[in-house]
Amino acid sequence: MSEQEIVTDVVIVGAGPVGLFAVFELGLLDIKCHLIDILDKPGGQCAELYPEKPIYDIPAFPEISGQELTDNLLKQAEPFGPTYHYNRMVNEIERQDNGDFLVKTDAGETFRCKVVVIAAGGGSFQPKRPPVPNIEEYENQSVFYAVRKMDDFRDHDIVIVGGGDSALDWTLNLAPLAKSLTLVHRRDSFRAHTDSVNKMRALVDEGKINFELGQIASLEGENGQISAVNIKNADGEKSLPATRLMPFFGLTMKLGPVANWGLNLHENLINVDTEKFATSEEGIFAIGDINYYPGKLKLILSGFHEAALMAQAAKKIISPDEKVVFQYTTSSTKLQKKLGVK
Amino acid sequence: MSEQEIVTDVVIVGAGPVGLFAVFELGLLDIKCHLIDILDKPGGQCAELYPEKPIYDIPAFPEISGQELTDNLLKQAEPFGPTYHYNRMVNEIERQDNGDFLVKTDAGETFRCKVVVIAAGGGSFQPKRPPVPNIEEYENQSVFYAVRKMDDFRDHDIVIVGGGDSALDWTLNLAPLAKSLTLVHRRDSFRAHTDSVNKMRALVDEGKINFELGQIASLEGENGQISAVNIKNADGEKSLPATRLMPFFGLTMKLGPVANWGLNLHENLINVDTEKFATSEEGIFAIGDINYYPGKLKLILSGFHEAALMAQAAKKIISPDEKVVFQYTTSSTKLQKKLGVK
Repeated sequence: MSEQEIVTDVVIVGAGPVGLFAVFELGLLDIKCHLIDILDKPGGQCAELYPEKPIYDIPAFPEISGQELTDNLLKQAEPFGPTYHYNRMVNEIERQDNGDFLVKTDAGETFRCKVVVIAAGGGSFQPKRPPVPNIEEYENQSVFYAVRKMDDFRDHDIVIVGGGDSALDWTLNLAPLAKSLTLVHRRDSFRAHTDSVNKMRALVDEGKINFELGQIASLEGENGQISAVNIKNADGEKSLPATRLMPFFGLTMKLGPVANWGLNLHENLINVDTEKFATSEEGIFAIGDINYYPGKLKLILSGFHEAALMAQAAKKIISPDEKVVFQYTTSSTKLQKKLGVK
Repeated sequence: MSEQEIVTDVVIVGAGPVGLFAVFELGLLDIKCHLIDILDKPGGQCAELYPEKPIYDIPAFPEISGQELTDNLLKQAEPFGPTYHYNRMVNEIERQDNGDFLVKTDAGETFRCKVVVIAAGGGSFQPKRPPVPNIEEYENQSVFYAVRKMDDFRDHDIVIVGGGDSALDWTLNLAPLAKSLTLVHRRDSFRAHTDSVNKMRALVDEGKINFELGQIASLEGENGQISAVNIKNADGEKSLPATRLMPFFGLTMKLGPVANWGLNLHENLINVDTEKFATSEEGIFAIGDINYYPGKLKLILSGFHEAALMAQAAKKIISPDEKVVFQYTTSSTKLQKKLGVK
């Protein structure tokens, strides 16, 4: 047993709206959850892609923003004390002889649980790979799309490419510990917060970092270690010495490691039944946009329903001997006590 | 074609939360609806049984009252201009040769539509029949549980039995046109609004109506027409001359005429599939608490999901030749225009 092993009832892969509501539905049945999300905050697509954009089809909300929806769901889940783990990806789900699952993340944790709920939306958000020859040979060695440990960047010649918040934020965060840092963007205007842009420009003026107009053309290096990033712009080509490259070209949705978990898939979605939203693997459920069944609509409200039915089935796996009587929050004092309202 | 025939795309039987959300989901697909409800207002159980009681399991509402939920859903449905018909019951659904349905109510209307959506909750709320011998022989002739037309009570000797809001409200409303009116209740305290009780007592003091302590024991009359209501109380028995009796003993849930519509039933619930929430009759759907499928939970949030999937299937029946591309309210300007927000 690893020192890092975290024991819980359920691991929910994905802390988007449907994962958050699953915490509530499982909580009503006394089931404890840990949630793992690749993003740095809860809310999934809602919070990442359209935090301020209004949504009109959440029942009983004529209009609600992605961020408000997320905040409300977090509040509703709160009485059940879920634990959130951000900035990590589930790489592996391994079934043990006693039926438990070991869920392993790329941040090194291992979770031991009885039930896994995949609520990973359109799959995991994955960084878009820039169109640079052979870049994949350097990935996770000297080319990174995210910062897991700041120390991996200390005293390096860092090139950051992009014009959005991620590029600007990491430019500001890594500047103090870099040997050198160059921000590359194809034009001299940015989609990032004005404040970050101003700070970046001040650092350039002070000579602490460099800014180059242009696009990455190619990489130099060997054995996974880059030595230079070649860029091109209106004036021609230029070679920037670099031992670390961070391209920020946005996120794309990919099924990611889910594809390797041995579940029956339907066009990159996970096949489930409509009674329990169970996958082809006993104990693994899939809810929300990532699942498929006849009639499926990728609506948040459908994920809520799926979470409720899944919870009943999960309960039977977690407490096989307990007789569960279905209760309503409106009338059950027991449920109201759990919610902290009685 | 009857003069009363109302032509529409969809008739929704039941204006509870699920029926109301169906208006929204159908509306996004340009489908027009009429709703029919046995109650005198929208909201179904939520508004009738627990308007002020908090509900905790509506997604993204840590707490909401039945009345607020209803109000929000009405507002969300509003852009699609539904027509609500209250205080009536659907007695008959008749399929025509061209596939249309004729939906007939006990208030005399006939609706012609292509799709019927049954969202009737636990069935229809039906008045509880008081335990009085042979009362059913007088029902709808001289014994009424609801007022359809005030004029049916004009110049009658009316006896109203009960101590809640319905009894008190109808006492006050019918007093001006009755030949005589007697309110009977088993004790001299009431569950009705204080204001109504005060007004009723004022009318008694002025000699305009009578109040009797007691319970109904038996009826006198023949051929459906009562002539007297016999009550008993601590002092013995008393006979009240009466040509109209209205007992208000509360509501009970019954499947009602739904049971006669030829649909496949499962323990008084309507069997549906989970792809379209279609019943055994093409063109008739059932959503919310009234339907059954494996895994079914009687949760409002499940009814919302069912409404969304039903709407897609209804669209194919109503506009068989139209190619429908599934769109999101968050990103589709076309949908936002329909909602009146763009």
